Amino acid sequence: MNFSSALIEKGVDAFSSLPGIGRKTALRLVLHLLKQDTNVTEQFGEALIKMRRDIKECEECHNLSDDKICRICADQRRDRSLVCVVENIRDLMAIEDTSQFRGLYHVLGGIISPIEGIGPNDLNIESLISRCEKGGVKEVIMAISPTIEGETTLYYLAKKLQPLDIQISSIARGVAFGGDLEYADEITLGRSIVARTPYER
Amino acid sequence: MNFSSALIEKGVDAFSSLPGIGRKTALRLVLHLLKQDTNVTEQFGEALIKMRRDIKECEECHNLSDDKICRICADQRRDRSLVCVVENIRDLMAIEDTSQFRGLYHVLGGIISPIEGIGPNDLNIESLISRCEKGGVKEVIMAISPTIEGETTLYYLAKKLQPLDIQISSIARGVAFGGDLEYADEITLGRSIVARTPYER
Repeated sequence: MNFSSALIEKGVDAFSSLPGIGRKTALRLVLHLLKQDTNVTEQFGEALIKMRRDIKECEECHNLSDDKICRICADQRRDRSLVCVVENIRDLMAIEDTSQFRGLYHVLGGIISPIEGIGPNDLNIESLISRCEKGGVKEVIMAISPTIEGETTLYYLAKKLQPLDIQISSIARGVAFGGDLEYADEITLGRSIVARTPYER
Repeated sequence: MNFSSALIEKGVDAFSSLPGIGRKTALRLVLHLLKQDTNVTEQFGEALIKMRRDIKECEECHNLSDDKICRICADQRRDRSLVCVVENIRDLMAIEDTSQFRGLYHVLGGIISPIEGIGPNDLNIESLISRCEKGGVKEVIMAISPTIEGETTLYYLAKKLQPLDIQISSIARGVAFGGDLEYADEITLGRSIVARTPYER
């Protein structure tokens, strides 16, 4: 792309440095901002800069937070005896969006992956153990992706938590609601038969 | 989407105010920026703010520019007797990217569209006429989309320029290079037969 303006080129460079945004999309975004008032761009840029500067990690659960303790951990109406372990913040938000969970979370910040060189010490595992050791936690729910790395992480965490008197559970796996059986993959379908649940009348 | 942080929510709001970016994509971009150093976001935001504040419209051709006169108009190696009329800056950039045109441009800023309430006075037409009246321009090339609005604009411009001794031309229309004839639309294919060009041996 030939730019007749170095300023536009820098704007396009900025946007196209983001994941999933190519130079054509970046140009479209830049031209959009140039059509608006100057203060639209100022508010846009300043919102992002302020967000990045002021964001903190919750000291309890490692969720991203505006304060030292995140909104979820600070909410006294939530069940503090339940801790749901998630890989990252996106998974936490996905579970929050279901409105089905009223306990607390613990964000690992990744999963154990020897291929990518991520070991237990790179994750927020020590803080999970010490949270559980403090007492008050009755159940830890593992909401970790059912991949090989996920299963490894789950196994490691279960072993670490074994000495404590805490129930460990894992989110249910099976055929998705609304999903056609014939399109379910073999492993999921096979496991969903083995792990069948009794029909409740 | 439930946000446990007002800062993240504002970041997502900022990104999703851009065209073609939904809230899920916006969240992905926000989480990407939060993973990077603070100065990455600062540079990103400041590049856009600086761009919006400092950008100017070229006094000659209405192209977006860093200075009073854009790089293209300031380039003395370009043929000043040729002026290519385009609808907007994106079209200008598309033509620049072909490296086939070494003249100057004139950005109309839109096309005449009675439905959208855009008349000749809303466009940079007066400045085109006065550029041509100054002398030195031998040919005006109309690179305007072949739509009804585009044809109307072309007709209006041609009439305005008629009193001046200037050649008016329009970019060639026909079947695209590499395009299969059977997939070309009927109007394009029909016109390309009527407006056939002699084969050059």
